[in-house]
Amino acid sequence: MLPDPIKNFIAIFSKLPSIGLRQSTRLAFYLINKGKNQIEETAKVISDLKYLKICSMCFFVHSGPIREKSSNGAGKENLCDICQDKNRQNNIFMVLEKETDLISIERTKKFKGRYLVLGELTKSGDMKSAQKLRLNHLKNIIKKELGTKAEEIIIATNPTTYGDLNAMIITKELKDFAKKITRLGRGIPTGGEIEFADEETLGQALERRS
Amino acid sequence: MLPDPIKNFIAIFSKLPSIGLRQSTRLAFYLINKGKNQIEETAKVISDLKYLKICSMCFFVHSGPIREKSSNGAGKENLCDICQDKNRQNNIFMVLEKETDLISIERTKKFKGRYLVLGELTKSGDMKSAQKLRLNHLKNIIKKELGTKAEEIIIATNPTTYGDLNAMIITKELKDFAKKITRLGRGIPTGGEIEFADEETLGQALERRS
Repeated sequence: MLPDPIKNFIAIFSKLPSIGLRQSTRLAFYLINKGKNQIEETAKVISDLKYLKICSMCFFVHSGPIREKSSNGAGKENLCDICQDKNRQNNIFMVLEKETDLISIERTKKFKGRYLVLGELTKSGDMKSAQKLRLNHLKNIIKKELGTKAEEIIIATNPTTYGDLNAMIITKELKDFAKKITRLGRGIPTGGEIEFADEETLGQALERRS
Repeated sequence: MLPDPIKNFIAIFSKLPSIGLRQSTRLAFYLINKGKNQIEETAKVISDLKYLKICSMCFFVHSGPIREKSSNGAGKENLCDICQDKNRQNNIFMVLEKETDLISIERTKKFKGRYLVLGELTKSGDMKSAQKLRLNHLKNIIKKELGTKAEEIIIATNPTTYGDLNAMIITKELKDFAKKITRLGRGIPTGGEIEFADEETLGQALERRS
């Protein structure tokens, strides 16, 4: 009964994360009722995502130009704003899974090092080959740029069972490349209440009191 | 810190119904990580929604051709599959708010009349001028096509306070155009439990027992 354009829309949109059948159907009619301009504008902001580039250093996204390297001549530079920023410490790295994790960390304005975005890790602890390549890439950067171990590598996976497992595996991989390897602190979130904190969190908060 | 294409994407998507800032950010990175093909495919299914037409009879969508009228010559026919279907009863109408409501009713396969899609009604009971036009349009169809009152008009607004208010207003508008005006039955939903039904629902179920 539904016209093909709506069926096609639902087929694609219902597969996007956290958008199911019902929401994609509602979205289709919302856009249709808004009219051609809104439809075109919405299609354009999606289409324009294809112009984004992936930083060759940390694998975050950027939209800047790919430039000829100035110093050591060979190849082209394809760096995001963070990796281009000369004011950031080049001997501290944070390894994290998602671009949105990076955005959250940047918002704190408390981390002045650089990143490595790994992509979402599996729950089994098996790393995809692309993720292994990214870790090796970090090792190479440390070897080449610093010629010695990094001061610190922060493994910023989630404080969950899977995050802990993956952090252990990444730590093993990187342990020869940093003087120390750390993880984000654990405890009661600011604004949280002791009464409602789960045992594990409260235990961690006690152990890591300061 | 975010590149413009992502900012633009978030600005548009976070305003869509039930998609907030966080989900639109996640969607942007999901699509970026899926690559150009998925980005283009997703943009296309949105863009193609613009080819849909609105049925000149019931205001549901369709993608069929606009054809010359065969019988009474004047103008063009721009009808959805339902309004074109000669097997449907032409003297019973269901007035509903949303296209998705129509889809749900069609799935029951129990309604063989035709529809009028009004668009979402306000909670104040004030009807938008476009909605008033649609109601007048239905009155004209009944007058022209039937030359007499319709057998029945079902007002299928939601069984909520606002839905009831709007149903009253629509009933008043249409009362001279149908032999009877009805609403959808109320009671305990199939699979529901008496113990957990709210008072109002249970009261209605008792009143409307059969």
